[in-house]
Amino acid sequence: MDTPLDKLTEEFRRLPGIGVKTARKLAYYIVQQPASRVDEFVDAIRDAKANMHFCSVCFNLSSQDPCPICSDISRDRSTICVVETPQDVQAIERSGDYHGLYHVLHGALSPLDGVNVEDLRIRELLQRLGNTTVKEVILATDPDVEGEATALYLARLIKTAGIRVTRIARGLPMGGDIEYADEATLAGAVANRQEM
Amino acid sequence: MDTPLDKLTEEFRRLPGIGVKTARKLAYYIVQQPASRVDEFVDAIRDAKANMHFCSVCFNLSSQDPCPICSDISRDRSTICVVETPQDVQAIERSGDYHGLYHVLHGALSPLDGVNVEDLRIRELLQRLGNTTVKEVILATDPDVEGEATALYLARLIKTAGIRVTRIARGLPMGGDIEYADEATLAGAVANRQEM
Repeated sequence: MDTPLDKLTEEFRRLPGIGVKTARKLAYYIVQQPASRVDEFVDAIRDAKANMHFCSVCFNLSSQDPCPICSDISRDRSTICVVETPQDVQAIERSGDYHGLYHVLHGALSPLDGVNVEDLRIRELLQRLGNTTVKEVILATDPDVEGEATALYLARLIKTAGIRVTRIARGLPMGGDIEYADEATLAGAVANRQEM
Repeated sequence: MDTPLDKLTEEFRRLPGIGVKTARKLAYYIVQQPASRVDEFVDAIRDAKANMHFCSVCFNLSSQDPCPICSDISRDRSTICVVETPQDVQAIERSGDYHGLYHVLHGALSPLDGVNVEDLRIRELLQRLGNTTVKEVILATDPDVEGEATALYLARLIKTAGIRVTRIARGLPMGGDIEYADEATLAGAVANRQEM
């Protein structure tokens, strides 16, 4: 017989990166919290789900439309950074060095997993490029097989429109170790070397 | 400005064992799920919180009172296994070898953390032992400082009532390695050695 606690454990299990032991720990924790704390948690879930939507311009997650980045008149409108997920936007924003706009694809091309061109926000990206004067598109998809394939596909399409296309650099991560770096990373780091 | 997504991330952060990166991942995951899935998750939380209560006999978490273990007439009522948390009951039940009853203390003695005798379900345990004919109390508190102190405290109290008190064995875990075992574990494993 499944108790409500088992069902909650199962729900936690379905979240990404949560194993059965963590799920059980979280379920036990929740039921032993005061009712007011559980209400706060549930309200936060409901509120986030109800009020976070995709920006109709860049498809980032936001409680406003257009999102604060697309509406910010101080940002450089001639550059669009193309990423796979809203989390990638947050990561690049945290780095603090980029002041252009974004476009969130919501995935990367992966035909074996059934993710094709029409499943990503590629048509919307091309429309955006057609309607506005963009000088550079930075392809910041992940440096893995799917991300590289997506970047190659987009680069060909966008270059035909006469827009500059760049790819984020592959190199050694900060705190990395040359001895243990994989070949592709090291090759990229050497190829992308900078004058000092 | 905190978005609803930031607030949900903060709520996930407050769960045990969830760091800021995992919290962010979970928050993004939730808001990108279909509304029906989010409703299922919220319902599971509300349902578990509303319907899981402490058993009035053993203080285990259960949707029934008394809990299924306390109500199970096939279980050995002459043995009570004392544990710190409801999760410990589940762990021992999964081992499948114990057929007596339980008593959940809801913590272990830790005066420095402000956990004293009156904060645990110790009075209720002594009342239970006074009202029923229990032959053995197995002390299955954790083998750490607080758990050992709690076991010692309870052993003295219960022995004066003329009831047999045992402590779960300290020894090498299955798959363990003698070379890397700590001294206290090894000493316990030798002291608790069994005839073959």
